[in-house]
Amino acid sequence: MERHEFFMKKALEEARLAGSEGEIPVGAVITCNDRVIARAHNQTELLNDVTAHAEILAITAAATALGGKYLDGCTLYVTLEPCVMCGGALAWARLKELVYGAADPHRGYARVAPPVMHPKTRVIPGVLARECTELVDRFFTNKRKRGEEG
Amino acid sequence: MERHEFFMKKALEEARLAGSEGEIPVGAVITCNDRVIARAHNQTELLNDVTAHAEILAITAAATALGGKYLDGCTLYVTLEPCVMCGGALAWARLKELVYGAADPHRGYARVAPPVMHPKTRVIPGVLARECTELVDRFFTNKRKRGEEG
Repeated sequence: MERHEFFMKKALEEARLAGSEGEIPVGAVITCNDRVIARAHNQTELLNDVTAHAEILAITAAATALGGKYLDGCTLYVTLEPCVMCGGALAWARLKELVYGAADPHRGYARVAPPVMHPKTRVIPGVLARECTELVDRFFTNKRKRGEEG
Repeated sequence: MERHEFFMKKALEEARLAGSEGEIPVGAVITCNDRVIARAHNQTELLNDVTAHAEILAITAAATALGGKYLDGCTLYVTLEPCVMCGGALAWARLKELVYGAADPHRGYARVAPPVMHPKTRVIPGVLARECTELVDRFFTNKRKRGEEG
């Protein structure tokens, strides 16, 4: 668990970076044999692209780093439970292990479409959940205070 | 329907292009006010990236063309029923209308996770279904004949 918290902290760093850029603060890190091979944060606003979630960008970066498109030896750490799009992408990538922090009861894959994830992917939810949840909650609270839409 | 067949033929052209490049032959076209604003085909092999489905590439291209990330005035034509990843992406994009050709009973979003699609998206299946289905079936038949894996 210590190892998972270590890498989740790296994902949290990415998430904070996203928040500082006005993006919904979600960050992801991909490891292979406990070495970070990719890190990314949500860039939907910057790239003007709904598909630019942290996980999608991290999958693409990891495949480039590995020189192969399957992540069957990799762990993805992400601060927020993946949405269905990202769950589907992780399934195509044949991810070995998914570790996430905050649950997303509205948009998370587990509520909308639990069978999305690849059957071989081990899922570990709730790592540093409090920090991960607070980061997102604070972002939306501030947004509402400023009268912006979510 | 004639209009839908017209644009599906453009998507079929893209799909054939993918097939000629050794990719699973799936093509997509996005229109806005009946003008093509994006076209793309599956490039998972070329880009070495499981997320490089025709729909994902087309969404990104359309957002660039529109200068905005929502496709709420757009129709996406795709030769094969979108997978869950692409269904989720189309939901984030708030797509107005989805028109597809061949059904995908194994990987299509409708079987795995029908609620994935945005509730406002109108879905029209089965346009030029025979041509669209044959294209994919032929690809996999040839692959098997050559003894390659799917």
